[in-house]
Amino acid sequence: MAKKMNAFYAQSGGVTAVINASACGVIETARKHKDKIGKVYAGRNGIIGALTEDLIDTTKESAAAIAALRNTPSGAFGSCRFKLKSLEANKREYERLIEVFKAHNIGYFFYNGGGDSADTCFKVSQLSEAMGYPIQAIHVPKTVDNDLPITDCCPGFGSVAKYIAVSTLEASYDVRSMAKTSTKVFVIEVMGRHAGWIAAAGGLVEDHGIPVVILFPEVEFDQKKFLAAVDKKVKEFGFCTVVVSEGCHYPDGRFLAEQGTRDAFGHAQLGGAAPVVANMIKDALGHKFHWAVADYLQRAARHIASKTDVKQAYELGKKAVELAVKGHNSVMPTVDRLSDSPYKYKIGMAPLSKVANVEKFMPRDFITKDGFGITPKCKRYLTPLIQGEDYPKYKDGLPVYVTLKNVAVAKKLPTFKL
Amino acid sequence: MAKKMNAFYAQSGGVTAVINASACGVIETARKHKDKIGKVYAGRNGIIGALTEDLIDTTKESAAAIAALRNTPSGAFGSCRFKLKSLEANKREYERLIEVFKAHNIGYFFYNGGGDSADTCFKVSQLSEAMGYPIQAIHVPKTVDNDLPITDCCPGFGSVAKYIAVSTLEASYDVRSMAKTSTKVFVIEVMGRHAGWIAAAGGLVEDHGIPVVILFPEVEFDQKKFLAAVDKKVKEFGFCTVVVSEGCHYPDGRFLAEQGTRDAFGHAQLGGAAPVVANMIKDALGHKFHWAVADYLQRAARHIASKTDVKQAYELGKKAVELAVKGHNSVMPTVDRLSDSPYKYKIGMAPLSKVANVEKFMPRDFITKDGFGITPKCKRYLTPLIQGEDYPKYKDGLPVYVTLKNVAVAKKLPTFKL
Repeated sequence: MAKKMNAFYAQSGGVTAVINASACGVIETARKHKDKIGKVYAGRNGIIGALTEDLIDTTKESAAAIAALRNTPSGAFGSCRFKLKSLEANKREYERLIEVFKAHNIGYFFYNGGGDSADTCFKVSQLSEAMGYPIQAIHVPKTVDNDLPITDCCPGFGSVAKYIAVSTLEASYDVRSMAKTSTKVFVIEVMGRHAGWIAAAGGLVEDHGIPVVILFPEVEFDQKKFLAAVDKKVKEFGFCTVVVSEGCHYPDGRFLAEQGTRDAFGHAQLGGAAPVVANMIKDALGHKFHWAVADYLQRAARHIASKTDVKQAYELGKKAVELAVKGHNSVMPTVDRLSDSPYKYKIGMAPLSKVANVEKFMPRDFITKDGFGITPKCKRYLTPLIQGEDYPKYKDGLPVYVTLKNVAVAKKLPTFKL
Repeated sequence: MAKKMNAFYAQSGGVTAVINASACGVIETARKHKDKIGKVYAGRNGIIGALTEDLIDTTKESAAAIAALRNTPSGAFGSCRFKLKSLEANKREYERLIEVFKAHNIGYFFYNGGGDSADTCFKVSQLSEAMGYPIQAIHVPKTVDNDLPITDCCPGFGSVAKYIAVSTLEASYDVRSMAKTSTKVFVIEVMGRHAGWIAAAGGLVEDHGIPVVILFPEVEFDQKKFLAAVDKKVKEFGFCTVVVSEGCHYPDGRFLAEQGTRDAFGHAQLGGAAPVVANMIKDALGHKFHWAVADYLQRAARHIASKTDVKQAYELGKKAVELAVKGHNSVMPTVDRLSDSPYKYKIGMAPLSKVANVEKFMPRDFITKDGFGITPKCKRYLTPLIQGEDYPKYKDGLPVYVTLKNVAVAKKLPTFKL
């Protein structure tokens, strides 16, 4: 691309402890390529910001504010759950995107999200060919679910894995203390609708003497076998910790707990598997229980983020810009693992056509034969991802997180109805 | 006490992130007073360890292991939920305690717990007079509920308050990012059956631009007013965070969520107020929600403990031993606040007769007029207590917590049936 063009950056889907570190990588790197990239405009609330011409001028933010993004959880520009339909099904939206891109001289499109967002980014990347508008769309991977293909891991996952491993360890020490006369079973519910990566992280505490039973979404729930597994652990250790994935389900597909509502992508809104499991144990085995549902706490927990994860989130944002200035389109930078211990990786690249709408599940050999634990191979995979602490600064006892000014770019087009 | 006697130390009730820091203070200080204190025997699982003569010889633990207690959450010797009946109601238990104390030459009794445990400690302190056995019983305060009287705060509380404030801040940033197209209300359920101290800590994030509605156990739940408060915040900010205490209840005393089971003290086992509140909001206002129940995660979260809290926990354990060697009986060391900012305090002392079975609730002037927030006075009280971080060491991505050897002392007496 000969002409200097502006860039569009947006955050999509569920936010994480480190998605802003990727934003930091994108913006800081773009600022270093002023010969090719003009301004970085952020979409307010993801792709919706592009469709509604609700753009944020990131040049109004100081270098210090952008640097602080590295240490701030959540999505600084707002995220969205909004999936573009196909070009055939809703040409109007694509035409609008081109109008907005043209109006603001946007030639680079950086979309920071998971599988659904990769699909959106892939569709945008096709605009160039399909509608004759020169755009380079690069996807910046992000998802606590760790379910994007090709890349060894996804930014956001390492930190949630660390949070879950640390929390499971701490709560298990707690229940161990109480087990003689009180709580014998502690159940923690973790995120993961289809893939059990986050639940797997709870298994890392086994090497610290903690008995853990894990319920993966990849393993159909078998109540009898599950209760027998818990019973065995309690008899041996005096207590037991259960890590249940929100996506754990019966053979017929029913989730252990469905709230009956669905989100914008049509996914069932889950939650509440922990109390279901806990009461099941109480009824069958009579043990006193406690249960926790970590929910947003796990994916927002920047205070205990993995240093490795923060570093990779930043590097992938940086790499996305570097790929763009080199002329790439329709790609996603990836983490390519070179070795487990010492942990070595390089940043690679994958075509978006192979990323969009593909989900990566736990390999069968990461899960123990009985279906309730993780294998040494899985531990070798997970351990490097939770390495290192990257503490934010604190003031008055609370972390110092940045809230950007988010100054709007003046609109040039008529209003667009979503 | 002229003769050199051994000491008994035990942990009671719900454990915390810093109760082991108090144990560390007790044991390290006792080791410095070898002229007056022989061995420190820890009760395995609280007072049950004394009744069943299940004593742990802490002299078998290295100085490094005892020092590591300062950084380890949970109760290293096991805790219990077991309340001694009155001397009149169950003389047999008291006679047994004296037998065990005599058999092991125990002259000092350090009991580390909350209100119910202070009552146990108080009863033991009366043995001296009532049953002619020379024992000095000192209570070491501990409770995340922060509901002990006289002392300005209770070890364990500062850390849980910090955890809840940090987590509420982080999750609120998350929901703020998602609110445009998805989650608008985040509900976090926190501990606190009768006193709203922990819930109050969630209010500290208000000064970070987060709209918070708090449901205290001290304020009878009024659904209409509550929904109006949430509606107002969502209209003004686009999102809202709700912090609900597990003890929040209707005017008739019914908890928002009761599981129907009761613990050994006869307390209702609570949990699940968050989903009740979240669904209430969905039904009335239509907002998409997420909810979390922090449960044990909050009280075990040593990884984000308050430095002030860890320090005080240690100092109170230390002071308990110092009071004992000075000849005190039936007392509890206290935190006496001298000033808010800069935060200054001294370690004082209170008679156990004034501590046992007294609960300290949130003063009315700590809660805003509408009942849903905290006042500047409350913020001045809370802020010093969450000051400072006191990170544990990490190995392979997880905190290094100690598990003691807990070597049993040889029994000398016949078995005792509880």
